[in-house]
Amino acid sequence: MTIVETPMAARGADLDPLRDQAVLLVQGQDRPGLVRAVSTTLAEHRANIISLDQYTDHANGGRFFQRAVFRLEGLDVARSALEESLRVALGEGFGLTWRLSALATPKRVAILASTSDHCLLDLLWRQRRGEIPMTVPMVISNHSVVADDVRFLGIPFFHVPSSGPDKAAAEDRIVELLADNVDVVVLARYMQILSGDFLARVGVPVINIHHSFLPAFIGAGPYRKAKERGVKLIGATAHYATEDLDEGPIIEQDVVRVTHADTAADLQRRGADVERAVLARAVTWHCEDRVMRHGRETVVL
Amino acid sequence: MTIVETPMAARGADLDPLRDQAVLLVQGQDRPGLVRAVSTTLAEHRANIISLDQYTDHANGGRFFQRAVFRLEGLDVARSALEESLRVALGEGFGLTWRLSALATPKRVAILASTSDHCLLDLLWRQRRGEIPMTVPMVISNHSVVADDVRFLGIPFFHVPSSGPDKAAAEDRIVELLADNVDVVVLARYMQILSGDFLARVGVPVINIHHSFLPAFIGAGPYRKAKERGVKLIGATAHYATEDLDEGPIIEQDVVRVTHADTAADLQRRGADVERAVLARAVTWHCEDRVMRHGRETVVL
Amino acid sequence: MTIVETPMAARGADLDPLRDQAVLLVQGQDRPGLVRAVSTTLAEHRANIISLDQYTDHANGGRFFQRAVFRLEGLDVARSALEESLRVALGEGFGLTWRLSALATPKRVAILASTSDHCLLDLLWRQRRGEIPMTVPMVISNHSVVADDVRFLGIPFFHVPSSGPDKAAAEDRIVELLADNVDVVVLARYMQILSGDFLARVGVPVINIHHSFLPAFIGAGPYRKAKERGVKLIGATAHYATEDLDEGPIIEQDVVRVTHADTAADLQRRGADVERAVLARAVTWHCEDRVMRHGRETVVL
Amino acid sequence: MTIVETPMAARGADLDPLRDQAVLLVQGQDRPGLVRAVSTTLAEHRANIISLDQYTDHANGGRFFQRAVFRLEGLDVARSALEESLRVALGEGFGLTWRLSALATPKRVAILASTSDHCLLDLLWRQRRGEIPMTVPMVISNHSVVADDVRFLGIPFFHVPSSGPDKAAAEDRIVELLADNVDVVVLARYMQILSGDFLARVGVPVINIHHSFLPAFIGAGPYRKAKERGVKLIGATAHYATEDLDEGPIIEQDVVRVTHADTAADLQRRGADVERAVLARAVTWHCEDRVMRHGRETVVL
Repeated sequence: MTIVETPMAARGADLDPLRDQAVLLVQGQDRPGLVRAVSTTLAEHRANIISLDQYTDHANGGRFFQRAVFRLEGLDVARSALEESLRVALGEGFGLTWRLSALATPKRVAILASTSDHCLLDLLWRQRRGEIPMTVPMVISNHSVVADDVRFLGIPFFHVPSSGPDKAAAEDRIVELLADNVDVVVLARYMQILSGDFLARVGVPVINIHHSFLPAFIGAGPYRKAKERGVKLIGATAHYATEDLDEGPIIEQDVVRVTHADTAADLQRRGADVERAVLARAVTWHCEDRVMRHGRETVVL
Repeated sequence: MTIVETPMAARGADLDPLRDQAVLLVQGQDRPGLVRAVSTTLAEHRANIISLDQYTDHANGGRFFQRAVFRLEGLDVARSALEESLRVALGEGFGLTWRLSALATPKRVAILASTSDHCLLDLLWRQRRGEIPMTVPMVISNHSVVADDVRFLGIPFFHVPSSGPDKAAAEDRIVELLADNVDVVVLARYMQILSGDFLARVGVPVINIHHSFLPAFIGAGPYRKAKERGVKLIGATAHYATEDLDEGPIIEQDVVRVTHADTAADLQRRGADVERAVLARAVTWHCEDRVMRHGRETVVL
Repeated sequence: MTIVETPMAARGADLDPLRDQAVLLVQGQDRPGLVRAVSTTLAEHRANIISLDQYTDHANGGRFFQRAVFRLEGLDVARSALEESLRVALGEGFGLTWRLSALATPKRVAILASTSDHCLLDLLWRQRRGEIPMTVPMVISNHSVVADDVRFLGIPFFHVPSSGPDKAAAEDRIVELLADNVDVVVLARYMQILSGDFLARVGVPVINIHHSFLPAFIGAGPYRKAKERGVKLIGATAHYATEDLDEGPIIEQDVVRVTHADTAADLQRRGADVERAVLARAVTWHCEDRVMRHGRETVVL
Repeated sequence: MTIVETPMAARGADLDPLRDQAVLLVQGQDRPGLVRAVSTTLAEHRANIISLDQYTDHANGGRFFQRAVFRLEGLDVARSALEESLRVALGEGFGLTWRLSALATPKRVAILASTSDHCLLDLLWRQRRGEIPMTVPMVISNHSVVADDVRFLGIPFFHVPSSGPDKAAAEDRIVELLADNVDVVVLARYMQILSGDFLARVGVPVINIHHSFLPAFIGAGPYRKAKERGVKLIGATAHYATEDLDEGPIIEQDVVRVTHADTAADLQRRGADVERAVLARAVTWHCEDRVMRHGRETVVL
């Protein structure tokens, strides 16, 4: 007897239905009438809202966050008119900031890695499976150990060494490679501290994975510190990179249970599983336009 | 040195701000313009939407579910006019079903229990803390072992024995006690099977907690069966009671890890922690008007 | 139809079989032959080992930790002879420290609380159910709000106010109440910092519950700090109290998921569930003689 | 500034210290003196016990399970003499069954897969990282879609088609390939039902991953069934394959939370993460000689 397995959601086949779908993210000072303004503008353009999540951080006049997924027949053609209406209704009318993304257009994600492959390969494997709406135009590393794996998957790999004096030159080289080619940069255990200047020049969001449950064990060697403190759980934190190291807005966190019998190497190994899972969720949510930054926090809708 | 502890959210103090807030639940066939219709109706009555979650089960013409929390100055006075507008706009205009609840009016919850006290006492304790927006007008049991605990907490207790031949009479007595006094009934490990007739007559939703991860181990003795099968996790399931035992729409589930060293009694003990946690979440969500039934499923917004 | 519920493990009924069972905890420098020495000594006294867990923190000459549960017919009578043999074999022979506890003798646990009742009531309820092998000879609080609940459960309550100048007098009074009456002290959200002198004088282990995932958010106001930092998980930590606040050996930790929509009060409420669960596990393990301290770590067997 | 990353536990470098370590698994009818017999035998051969876990399923005369890790200088040379002593002391003396494995000898694991790659690639990646003490002498599939990935990792791949009439021939071919070459077979989402005859002929343990939280959703299409039932958690189960499909002894299980908004395809995608994690843990524990079968249960020490 043969069991016929339903193949994993062939997203390629899904792209067609996604073709006319888009996400609208809106953020700003809460005022009465915002939901009406958004839904009316969408309705006037004959867009049908598929899902809508709205959150206000205070019942009386807080900050307003909204994510709407809608379907609009002939989105490609209709988009610029819709954007003009949104500009008038939301921007001029209410002083809101907003962003529109077509669901059929995957985000272009550059991945920076060093010698560890667990976060890198997990992202590339999920991309190949169609789990994350992204393309990966390039992987950059200050080492070359992951080059073969990356190229086997058909993805360009660039080796940009970065030691002491070369650091500024390395950042220049990376900025050059990324310019206009990517929508987001993911630091998949990239073991170099990037300068604030780099973050400013790169011009797109940068997501980092930290191998601890922040704000515990800030800085280097978190697994060693966790072992010394005798904690019973270890964790990982995905956050937007900012100039203040380990202080950027947190997108996602998770933990795994450990015991006294786990060595620091065991913590590192078990932590790797949490790191890759947490980073994959953070990157997925970012690419699905679910994450909005507000000060040191994120709102994930 | 004295540490001043912030007292747990004194909801009493919160009731004032809640006074003008309400929840609107809407369900029906999805059609373009529904979000606009809701938000426009609310805006016309000067209601400000605090949060809104909307879900449609298919991108093209599925079923529409929406939960909106809004604030309307002078809700008590304005309510009937708003309801009339909703009736016209949502009911007549779109054939939607909807329900409006004032947040300041807690649900009236009757609890039925037997000899186990873990689910019962956890609910009563959460009610006393102000964690669940409910009042408990009565506890009914076919045993009297929990009577003192219940009455110590200031809650009326009724002993309704129910053995073999008395079953129908017991159901009559319970229906009589509940009639017009409660908005929802919670079976907190009530070890009597209620008839379909009872469920029909009681006229309000009935929430049950089953001591297994349904649909595994349907029926009696789930912990014994779990031990025999050698599972590594045990669970609990809160669901709306229906005439088909253990088949009602699931509201919430959770599990806890067990090992070969746990006896059936250990499973029962560890399971009790999951049962009370799962039931408390389900009752909270129901009382916060977050749960919508649709066939054998629930949508929790 | 009546469902007969198996009553929760009536531990009272279990005490008889536990009568001849004991736990032996052993700790010291690892050397070849330790397991043989322990098992031979037990076998010579006709004790049958029911379970045994042994852990050494390095393969070559680390520290040795062992927990053995055994059954010895007529333990009461045979105990002193066995202890003499253990003293010779383990103490003199190997320089090990060890401790023998009869399983039928529950630990005497004093609970110190303030105004929050969630940890306190959960421990008392578990004690009444027979889930934790302990008796509670007294509850002490610097407030009197929990007095009625405690006394309703048949447990003596002592009100020992402790503000500014009275602090030393309060500690004197507590030491006086505890002296020779208890085996362990549990701080169930007791919001007073105890002096190192107090910890020395009290002479038994003191277990504290901290309302954060230590070492994150050390000190006061962890839920507020967690909200400000925008974490996606909050936690609780049970640890032995030491003179260095929040630095004692960790017994147990756990976390719960939160979102941007949770206010600081929500974090406090959700955190309360984790706090009581974590503290209950830590107290249970301590009372079951599963926890051994070694420097800043605990070994839980 | 360069952050020096501690490379992931280079197990290659660890193999030397592991050279003289072994695991002894013992199972049988509990009788007084068993721990002494084991520890005395080991001590007489100058083996130092590093860790020991023992479990008996009843306090009075149940079944005895023990796992001991020990270090014995010159294990290769000393092994046969030790085994002879164990045969006499444990086998003849107590009627126990036992098994000795050198830690430095990884298990030989054959993996059978179909078209899904998530479990397969995760196992191969963990093997390459040195996380699981195993070698993979071959991957066999009834499809060829995973061939390139497998061979890129340097592992032999055999395509053994298996449709309707070919089924017996396919099983013959697989038995032939496996014979004497492997210590355990892992079905990594191998979508063919293997005959009881195959399981008998293959002569080594076979581990399967089922894509549900058994015993819920036995049989085909568990994600579809889970969607229809509206469960709030989905799971995966790793178990030893037996002739009774989905009924073999469970090694490990886990779950992940889902919502009403997840489609059957989403469940499949999220389930894949649980499947690979659960299977990896089960295979690791098996290869570390932690799992003992007893009837329909497993004891994991």
